[in-house]
Amino acid sequence: MRKSFRYLPILGWAREYDGPTLTSDLLAAVIVTIMLIPQSLAYAMLAGLPAEVGLYASILPLVAYAIFGTSRTLAVGPVAVVSLMTASAVGQIAAQGSLDYLTAAIGLALLSGAMLMVMGVFRLGFLANFLSHPVISGFITASGLLIAAGQLRHILGVAGEGGALPEILASLARELPSVNPTTLAIGIGVLLFLVFARKYLKPVLTGMGVPARLADMLAKAAPILAVGATVALAAAFGLGGRGVALVGAIPQGLPAFGVPALSLDLLSVLVVPAFLISVVGFVESVSVGQTLAAKRRQRIDPDQELIGLGAANIAAGLSSGYPVTGGFARSVVNFDAGAQTPAAGVFTAIGIALAAVFLTPLLANLPQATLAATIIVAVLTLVDFGAVRRVFAYSRSDFAAMAATIIVTLGWGVELGIIAGVVLSLLLHLYRSSKPHVAIVGQVPGTEHYRNIERHAVITSPEILSVRVDESLYFANSRFLEDTIAAHVAERPELRHVILMCSAVNAIDASALASLEEINSRLADAGIAFHLSEVKGPVMDRLKATDFLRHLNGRVFLSQHEAVTVLGTEAPEPSAAVLIQPQKRVSP
Amino acid sequence: MRKSFRYLPILGWAREYDGPTLTSDLLAAVIVTIMLIPQSLAYAMLAGLPAEVGLYASILPLVAYAIFGTSRTLAVGPVAVVSLMTASAVGQIAAQGSLDYLTAAIGLALLSGAMLMVMGVFRLGFLANFLSHPVISGFITASGLLIAAGQLRHILGVAGEGGALPEILASLARELPSVNPTTLAIGIGVLLFLVFARKYLKPVLTGMGVPARLADMLAKAAPILAVGATVALAAAFGLGGRGVALVGAIPQGLPAFGVPALSLDLLSVLVVPAFLISVVGFVESVSVGQTLAAKRRQRIDPDQELIGLGAANIAAGLSSGYPVTGGFARSVVNFDAGAQTPAAGVFTAIGIALAAVFLTPLLANLPQATLAATIIVAVLTLVDFGAVRRVFAYSRSDFAAMAATIIVTLGWGVELGIIAGVVLSLLLHLYRSSKPHVAIVGQVPGTEHYRNIERHAVITSPEILSVRVDESLYFANSRFLEDTIAAHVAERPELRHVILMCSAVNAIDASALASLEEINSRLADAGIAFHLSEVKGPVMDRLKATDFLRHLNGRVFLSQHEAVTVLGTEAPEPSAAVLIQPQKRVSP
Repeated sequence: MRKSFRYLPILGWAREYDGPTLTSDLLAAVIVTIMLIPQSLAYAMLAGLPAEVGLYASILPLVAYAIFGTSRTLAVGPVAVVSLMTASAVGQIAAQGSLDYLTAAIGLALLSGAMLMVMGVFRLGFLANFLSHPVISGFITASGLLIAAGQLRHILGVAGEGGALPEILASLARELPSVNPTTLAIGIGVLLFLVFARKYLKPVLTGMGVPARLADMLAKAAPILAVGATVALAAAFGLGGRGVALVGAIPQGLPAFGVPALSLDLLSVLVVPAFLISVVGFVESVSVGQTLAAKRRQRIDPDQELIGLGAANIAAGLSSGYPVTGGFARSVVNFDAGAQTPAAGVFTAIGIALAAVFLTPLLANLPQATLAATIIVAVLTLVDFGAVRRVFAYSRSDFAAMAATIIVTLGWGVELGIIAGVVLSLLLHLYRSSKPHVAIVGQVPGTEHYRNIERHAVITSPEILSVRVDESLYFANSRFLEDTIAAHVAERPELRHVILMCSAVNAIDASALASLEEINSRLADAGIAFHLSEVKGPVMDRLKATDFLRHLNGRVFLSQHEAVTVLGTEAPEPSAAVLIQPQKRVSP
Repeated sequence: MRKSFRYLPILGWAREYDGPTLTSDLLAAVIVTIMLIPQSLAYAMLAGLPAEVGLYASILPLVAYAIFGTSRTLAVGPVAVVSLMTASAVGQIAAQGSLDYLTAAIGLALLSGAMLMVMGVFRLGFLANFLSHPVISGFITASGLLIAAGQLRHILGVAGEGGALPEILASLARELPSVNPTTLAIGIGVLLFLVFARKYLKPVLTGMGVPARLADMLAKAAPILAVGATVALAAAFGLGGRGVALVGAIPQGLPAFGVPALSLDLLSVLVVPAFLISVVGFVESVSVGQTLAAKRRQRIDPDQELIGLGAANIAAGLSSGYPVTGGFARSVVNFDAGAQTPAAGVFTAIGIALAAVFLTPLLANLPQATLAATIIVAVLTLVDFGAVRRVFAYSRSDFAAMAATIIVTLGWGVELGIIAGVVLSLLLHLYRSSKPHVAIVGQVPGTEHYRNIERHAVITSPEILSVRVDESLYFANSRFLEDTIAAHVAERPELRHVILMCSAVNAIDASALASLEEINSRLADAGIAFHLSEVKGPVMDRLKATDFLRHLNGRVFLSQHEAVTVLGTEAPEPSAAVLIQPQKRVSP
């Protein structure tokens, strides 16, 4: 990749742009535009924002990403989880529908964009690694449930409130008597239609002779059909007058461009949510981007992706939008429809801009229940109980982090949920690596192999303790090593040599070095020599730069076998080698 | 260790107690008592508490530790760093000298004791592993400097304030004109005497024919000599009337036993400092205990130590004391004086109790400058710039954590200092392990060894990519592996096989498993087979319990050589093996 392309990937693909690529990109853009119109409206409603804000967030951000992003097929815009996080963050500051609410959402986009940019420039993409897979997966499942529950009120046609599940359910239960039957009928109808379209429309159409690819596209266009049909219904029967909540008048035209007046107070309150939105959005986007790039043996650059997404969010903030990121469903549609370059994103932006100018008058009669049904059907695909089961079977501690994320997200909201998950997974990781697998090893008879005495019949000597630690040594586990060796030494009065077998030690940090010094001097006090064996090259290089090897009251052996052979022969009285049978340690 | 001894180690040693042990313990107790009297008074002053509180904290806590602790020679009581942390925590809540201040200090002891107990019962000793060695070492050095600077005002005989270095120095500079010459003379005199005693008294005495051991004990008793001499001076010349700050009247007798009225508000403010004090005290105490135990091939149980220290702190709180822990200097003295069992601690407690009853009237004339000089000489041994230099030479990232700890501790106080150090060292650790060493390997000609292509002349095939990752795979590095493999695949169009060599992989968590699934399916989309080689037994056991091996579009080979041999022969057209020379990757 040329240097100048690093920060402006557009320079890479724009010069090779040709006619056939244009055709592919245009076709993909048309299909994504059709999909994106109802989604943009729906996710804006989910974020508690006026419908047009969803459209605005689907214009300039797409252009910005096309210039700075590295994925050829990622489609950015409003997505469900980020919309929920926006609602949660902004809802704590301002009343829904107020100008402050909109201003805060715009501030969130700007702040999040700036953070992503900074992370990209300083190559801080690794911060996303704090979000372990079980935490992300649990968070998305819980968000899906939370979003679906939150939309039920639009389906039922009742008022409702609450960011966490208990409040949402309590408020629904309270409002149940005032359900609006017409709204409910529309909501259920659209829901059933969308579920049918998702599951059966494609096979039915192909059964009727429609080509598979076209059938697939038609199935994906189901939401826009639902929008069209319910708008027509609402207009024809004047449903607005029958208590059906409609989207209402949407300002026609393109968004104003500029920075709203943002107070420092407001921005400081938004820092934590903006950071969480940035990281969650980045993780979602990068994993979609990587999956699609791999299919065509392309690649994306995660640090440049930060800049691409940062630019998209700043563009959103400058054009009255709200936080955006790369969406899974629409990116797959874009890819499947044959998009070749980010230019498809620019064409999609033009499509949405045209919609904002020409279609908005038609949308005033759109029932909110239609949008809610669109959201529910979309987010329920996020809910993955299978993943919960699989993680439970694979690892209890990963499951604990996942369960904490789900429970806290459902019960106390998205921000606390993700923080709880991250903190717990870090603690559990530290706990695990603070007690690494440590084996006492002995010689497999007739070989030069040394194996765990608890798993194999091996030869050991009462004067030599060989300890193999199966982890790099660093601050979290170095004291455990001290304890382990101290415990063995206290139990074995004949001991004269301790050999630390370092075949699995990839690094030794300063804490571990201090522990090794400590072990060495404690063993020396007890009249025991401390040796190392099988130290890896890079580790040995670093040890050589310290005083440790000079203090060491034993030696460094290239191999464990050499160590045992040399030390065994050196013993003043011939040590009685003992063949011990594998022994399972009794659990305490 | 018998089950019942687990929580009551006293049952282990008490039944073997005999005459000679009693004599040893009694002698050690006398010497430690003589050392502990001035220290207790001094550290109470350092903590901003009345002098008698230091004595109270050296009575019951010692008895409690003797019952519940596992070290045979650890001497608990007030220590410098914990006293500083107490002053910092309590100083934010109440004015020094007020009853609230004392109550808060007692609350801190109770809270810290309860936390240590809970950590012990739930075996949470690993939490101390969060404190890496460079952070602890930097924190203690910075605390030593902070304490010494803070005591200068007592030497100068001026008022002064401030918990952080800039404030302390500014206040000293302001007060410099009002230095009290008599106080300064006493302070400098005691300082010089103590430095002399520490460095030269023992050789001088042995030169005069005093037996070495006795000379050593006499040198250690220097502080009590200084106390006696300055008390006599102050009394004889009525120095109190000349503006020399004296300790003043100390209540005679034993502390009252009971729980003070603690509000929930107070306790909630103290939670964070109590936790930090618990962890720092525990780390200090355990490392002293382990060092001493090792000299006699004994051992301590870190989780039971939590209970022992917890009991000691609760005992401190119940008897008007303040937080305590195992001290380094006094434990070494106890050990050297021949203490055999924790009974020496009980005898020391009796000694201090006698002092509280009979000696306190004599101490009213003790100049504060004497105590300040004692503190300064004691804490300057904590300052270890050599460690800073060694850590700098060994590891830049460890140094960064250490430097942050020192700077923040000096500039903003102990609590922020230790938190900054822990957070930074965790971030740096995560950063390092999120970018593990990954080598592309090839066959060393004529052998079955596979080595890094950047370091060795090895044979590779354009159709096979062999990747060795030198770290366990977990959430912080699994995405890095995805990126790395994606980057290589994008560059090598002929690629047909990717082999992940797992010889250094000790564990694979759920995030890494998800990444492997992802890599597998992305490679499958690109028409590339994904294989594993040299997977360790325990890792393989876990993988077998999942669907991963069924999804794997390649195979699992026992050895890397087997993998390359089998895949090389299977190639439809004979692949041209290429011998590549080691190439240093050009740094970007």
